[in-house]
Amino acid sequence: MPRDTPKLFPVILSGGSGTRLWPLSRKSYPKQFAPLIGDRTLFQEAALRFAGEEAGMAAPIIVTNADFRFVVTEQLAAVGIDPGAVLIEPEPRNTAPAVLVAAFYLMARDPDAVMLVAPSDHAIPDRAAFLDAVTRGMEAVSRGRIVTFGITPDRPETGYGYLELETAPSPDGAASDLLRFVEKPGAAAARDMLASGKFLWNAGIFLARAADMVEAFRKHAPDVMAPVSAALKNATADLGFLRLAPGDYAKAPSISVDYAVMEKAGNLAVVPFSAGWSDLGGWDAVWREQGPDGDGVATSGPAEAIDCRDSLLRAETDGQVLVGIGLDNIIAVAMPDAVLVAPKDRAQDVKLAVARLKAHEKPQAETLPRDYRPWGWYETLVLGPRFQVKRIVVNPGAALSLQSHHHRAEHWIVVEGTAKVTVNSDVSLVSENQSVYVPLGAVHRLENPGKLPMVLIEVQTGSYLGEDDIVRHDDIYARGQGARG
Amino acid sequence: MPRDTPKLFPVILSGGSGTRLWPLSRKSYPKQFAPLIGDRTLFQEAALRFAGEEAGMAAPIIVTNADFRFVVTEQLAAVGIDPGAVLIEPEPRNTAPAVLVAAFYLMARDPDAVMLVAPSDHAIPDRAAFLDAVTRGMEAVSRGRIVTFGITPDRPETGYGYLELETAPSPDGAASDLLRFVEKPGAAAARDMLASGKFLWNAGIFLARAADMVEAFRKHAPDVMAPVSAALKNATADLGFLRLAPGDYAKAPSISVDYAVMEKAGNLAVVPFSAGWSDLGGWDAVWREQGPDGDGVATSGPAEAIDCRDSLLRAETDGQVLVGIGLDNIIAVAMPDAVLVAPKDRAQDVKLAVARLKAHEKPQAETLPRDYRPWGWYETLVLGPRFQVKRIVVNPGAALSLQSHHHRAEHWIVVEGTAKVTVNSDVSLVSENQSVYVPLGAVHRLENPGKLPMVLIEVQTGSYLGEDDIVRHDDIYARGQGARG
Repeated sequence: MPRDTPKLFPVILSGGSGTRLWPLSRKSYPKQFAPLIGDRTLFQEAALRFAGEEAGMAAPIIVTNADFRFVVTEQLAAVGIDPGAVLIEPEPRNTAPAVLVAAFYLMARDPDAVMLVAPSDHAIPDRAAFLDAVTRGMEAVSRGRIVTFGITPDRPETGYGYLELETAPSPDGAASDLLRFVEKPGAAAARDMLASGKFLWNAGIFLARAADMVEAFRKHAPDVMAPVSAALKNATADLGFLRLAPGDYAKAPSISVDYAVMEKAGNLAVVPFSAGWSDLGGWDAVWREQGPDGDGVATSGPAEAIDCRDSLLRAETDGQVLVGIGLDNIIAVAMPDAVLVAPKDRAQDVKLAVARLKAHEKPQAETLPRDYRPWGWYETLVLGPRFQVKRIVVNPGAALSLQSHHHRAEHWIVVEGTAKVTVNSDVSLVSENQSVYVPLGAVHRLENPGKLPMVLIEVQTGSYLGEDDIVRHDDIYARGQGARG
Repeated sequence: MPRDTPKLFPVILSGGSGTRLWPLSRKSYPKQFAPLIGDRTLFQEAALRFAGEEAGMAAPIIVTNADFRFVVTEQLAAVGIDPGAVLIEPEPRNTAPAVLVAAFYLMARDPDAVMLVAPSDHAIPDRAAFLDAVTRGMEAVSRGRIVTFGITPDRPETGYGYLELETAPSPDGAASDLLRFVEKPGAAAARDMLASGKFLWNAGIFLARAADMVEAFRKHAPDVMAPVSAALKNATADLGFLRLAPGDYAKAPSISVDYAVMEKAGNLAVVPFSAGWSDLGGWDAVWREQGPDGDGVATSGPAEAIDCRDSLLRAETDGQVLVGIGLDNIIAVAMPDAVLVAPKDRAQDVKLAVARLKAHEKPQAETLPRDYRPWGWYETLVLGPRFQVKRIVVNPGAALSLQSHHHRAEHWIVVEGTAKVTVNSDVSLVSENQSVYVPLGAVHRLENPGKLPMVLIEVQTGSYLGEDDIVRHDDIYARGQGARG
């Protein structure tokens, strides 16, 4: 990309939490943060796709919600990316407010900023091809167009919206004008559209000057403008995050950017892209992207398929084997706390599982056993009538709040790294294979002063072991009494 | 049963370990010891079926193998049954040697003893009806017959062997002569046999005077006699068990009692039984016995069936949910370390899963996470690179061996009950919420001096954490160096 082009800012939307990839994806930790395909998470893949000076990209702007803020920064750090900004939505309001707030943020920094808005939960295996498509879009952007990317369909898919062009896209991949958006079609219509060559899948990825994006909102969705503008103006900086003002942001309508702006704007151009894309919008899509073998079988983890066809078998943890025998067109996803089995063509009904579990008040509907916190994560290993055992992992330099409990005592055994432990007025360094006792009522703090993660086994004993038995005396993450860990 | 009838001794065979109910049933802990249907285990149900003075039954004789000896006694104790004897097979030799050794054992105690030989892994829901069938069999026994029980078929089952009678059984349920045994039939033959009314399923349960059983072996399987007789003569008593002599027992042919004796003996009588029986020989049989609902769906544990038909969904632990959506004719069994999914009509191929996992050296093929020992049980909660966390439950009055480790130190935290802990020359009582450190190399012992189970969390740290890093200095259960826990 030539040096004189305007600066290109990736805007990665990562606040969403769908239910269609349950049990791997949960409200507390949705699919974009899981290593769904390959070793890196979808969010990391998205960030890496748009990273790097050679791609002409500035540091990414992340829009997410408060629950995921530490996951976002940890996952970026793990792949060596320093975000340009992390904008925290106080509550989810769909994509229109998220896109607009990023546009406002960028305009204030660079009036010529170009934004590349992309979800964080899609698969685009060929990074170079996609960056090439972005370059092709810049010409249309320079003419004041909002560019959307259209995926060349390879099957009559009924699960995606389509973009209709005047004529089939030109072989050189140049942007062409958008005729109209088409809603998810029926099977017959999808076949016709595939045959015509003039319809592309709507990938929901946009490229535009921030100023043009704001202008489109002003014209087509003016009611989004004032609340989002105020939410940014009244935002508070907090530990490197920019927290949008809750009262203002709540007033923005909850609406998608497609519906609010794109379907109404007349200046849309479409850049075709045919090098592979999936929204991973269900286990059937994951099956397809994983690359099934000659029998149509895709497995991951310690999964064994015996005499199976056209099936997906995923064992999500090393300690749990999954065996399918004689399956045809079946999806099976196994986790230690939850297992899903369904025909592949019922993949879109996985939301029914989540609804059923929620109705039965099962925690597996929305939360994972592993709970991520500002300082690291923990998981319950066993919960007995009067005891609980947890594995606690504290990031280098991180600290839990200075706290005490009314109803439980805690034994801590350090098994990796070194902990700095405060119990009442005593401060000590506790290294691997050493233990500390925290009596009921004692004011205590746990820190990791080292350069590597510190792993600790906590054995709690007491009459009540709920997370809300916590009195916070001091917290570097500014959380309140009874709030989480 | 009148008082003057000879004493009836239940002989419960519980040394077997099939693979067809994997993952619930494993070699280390087979299906008869699991609560497959209802709260009690199949072994407990079998023992209770034949227990009680009112049934005219003596205390049961259990034939099992060394691995299961403590499970047997614990499970009997839990339902208040004191066994007459527990005969330990040094190695499995199929059912003929097991039946003969019980017959020898009983004859030596009571020349008129009658034995009722039954497997421990069948379902017979109506105890009273079965005891009534036993009573009906006693008349034939008094005439020197070996009685076998024939189940009135309700479907053309191809998975069982059949007993052919001269004529359909008499309505009063009296014993009639056996014409011949019939091997598992094909589908057409099974339909013909069902229609004829002269064929009953072979339940593999026998009633005979011990002396008549021995005589049958002498006539038809004389090669079993000498090694089994010697194994009993040279048996050693050990903690209430009678351990058959390994060298002698190994010389007995490994052969089923049906094949060795029953199919050759001319003095067999058949008592018909029609009040419900299953050998639970596969997940399809479990599905049938569990009582499927109107849609043919049977669930157990936290399992949810959404739009399912003719399927079995079992979640074997409270902490793991299993959701099936849109399944038809599917079996799904979920455990935290292993999950099976297969069509119901492939239930007999579950052995393929075990074989595949064994070939891939997965421990799940044969062992459960929970490991039963003479003193109680333990399970690994988490295994890290240089640490391991275990939950250890020690039975009242039980003690682990006096031991030491070359490569690991141990932290013990008592979370229920009271432990008596020896570390080198120090002996202390450790109660709930107290901890003890066992340094690398220290000679230590753990005991439960109390009246309730003691629960302890053990955190091991070290470079090698295998179970075989153990030096036994003293063991009340007489186990050797490097042997299990």
